[in-house]
Amino acid sequence: MTYCAALKMDKHLIFMSDTRTNAGVDNISKFRKMFTWSTPGERVITLMTAGNLATTQAVVSLLDERSKAPEERDPTLLQVPTLFQAARLIADTLNEVVHAHADEGQDAEAAFRATLIMGGQIAGQEPRLFLIYPEGNFIEASAETPFFQIGETKYGRPIILRAFDPAMTVEQALRLLCVSFDSTLRANLSVGMPLDVHVYDADALKTGAQFRIEENDPSFSAISQGWGAALQSALEGLPEFAPPDLNS
Amino acid sequence: MTYCAALKMDKHLIFMSDTRTNAGVDNISKFRKMFTWSTPGERVITLMTAGNLATTQAVVSLLDERSKAPEERDPTLLQVPTLFQAARLIADTLNEVVHAHADEGQDAEAAFRATLIMGGQIAGQEPRLFLIYPEGNFIEASAETPFFQIGETKYGRPIILRAFDPAMTVEQALRLLCVSFDSTLRANLSVGMPLDVHVYDADALKTGAQFRIEENDPSFSAISQGWGAALQSALEGLPEFAPPDLNS
Repeated sequence: MTYCAALKMDKHLIFMSDTRTNAGVDNISKFRKMFTWSTPGERVITLMTAGNLATTQAVVSLLDERSKAPEERDPTLLQVPTLFQAARLIADTLNEVVHAHADEGQDAEAAFRATLIMGGQIAGQEPRLFLIYPEGNFIEASAETPFFQIGETKYGRPIILRAFDPAMTVEQALRLLCVSFDSTLRANLSVGMPLDVHVYDADALKTGAQFRIEENDPSFSAISQGWGAALQSALEGLPEFAPPDLNS
Repeated sequence: MTYCAALKMDKHLIFMSDTRTNAGVDNISKFRKMFTWSTPGERVITLMTAGNLATTQAVVSLLDERSKAPEERDPTLLQVPTLFQAARLIADTLNEVVHAHADEGQDAEAAFRATLIMGGQIAGQEPRLFLIYPEGNFIEASAETPFFQIGETKYGRPIILRAFDPAMTVEQALRLLCVSFDSTLRANLSVGMPLDVHVYDADALKTGAQFRIEENDPSFSAISQGWGAALQSALEGLPEFAPPDLNS
């Protein structure tokens, strides 16, 4: 399993992904799930992946090889004129990889599926964020839905739904993501530290702060430990539920 | 979809279930998912159901008919000597119903599946709580895992994991369940109000407070509305996450 989330903020795109992959509970590895391509001053594209590791590695490798040898096959991620075209290129590549194994039947196709989040900016255009489905179609984040999640999305979703505001500062948004990831890490063993982060600053047109949050990171630990106590006191601050006929 | 949760507390068993069923988003109905059988002074058994409605209704009807005409088929829920035997009886009934349709193939079997929570008490024995799987096997709640959820369990799980304590008062436990259900209701349209509740008092050997929380219930609304603000301020009370090289 995997958990990745991306926030489309007023002045930033923030990406966070875990690094655990597993084929059964006794076969756990650490793999990077966040990838960035950029031509400084012209474009930055970040991709996060969830699903079958062979599929996502093949997709990333194909995109990567093509961007390094553009003469072999046009267009590449570094050439497409818009992020919409980039989403289409990635989606087509994903579809191609998944269907290369589809001879094995429908079950195999299901097993080889992957879901992707892609976001970034191309010079002269707005920052954009896309969610790419295994079927090869995709949707774009909007003002109504300014964030996407892939993988094990449910545990960490309520807090984002309740608290995310695109006008937040980067530090506040990272805190929110840390809480969302912490809830997921606690509930699903197949999502694991460390976490990869990319904070893209709108209109910078170069990769922003990229860093890894390790298991013993003091900021993450403070948020994780503080959250338990904070939730407890948030709960205690609410009115208790008085059952109507409990004393009847 | 469905969401049901049951808490095994020091002095109570608390059951809460939603009432929405759907076959597609354009075919939504309201059905009770909580059922109680009792012989006052001797036993109380509460069952909650998630999964295929035809399956769960058939299971409940079979259990019900047998308990009303025990001479036709022994033993019944009102006769089995222990709750372990009650879990086995329910699990066998579930398995029988699911497999009655299994001629249609594996897909049909998957579609007809259901998961159940059963809890209660028989005179001279401790209160017990069971989770019954569609395969017809089951597990019992313990001190380490004193609660069970079925249906759409993930959205409402982190808060129970963080905050549930079997020594809570009934009013505190109901508040916790309201928060857990509120998170689920907000995230999944196929889980819906009203909510059914049964608060069983240990050693009472009769049904406890049973009531329905309607959409406009003032206690539930106060908790739901308060929770958003409380989460927000809980989050704001945490240290912000300072990215290591954001200013480099």
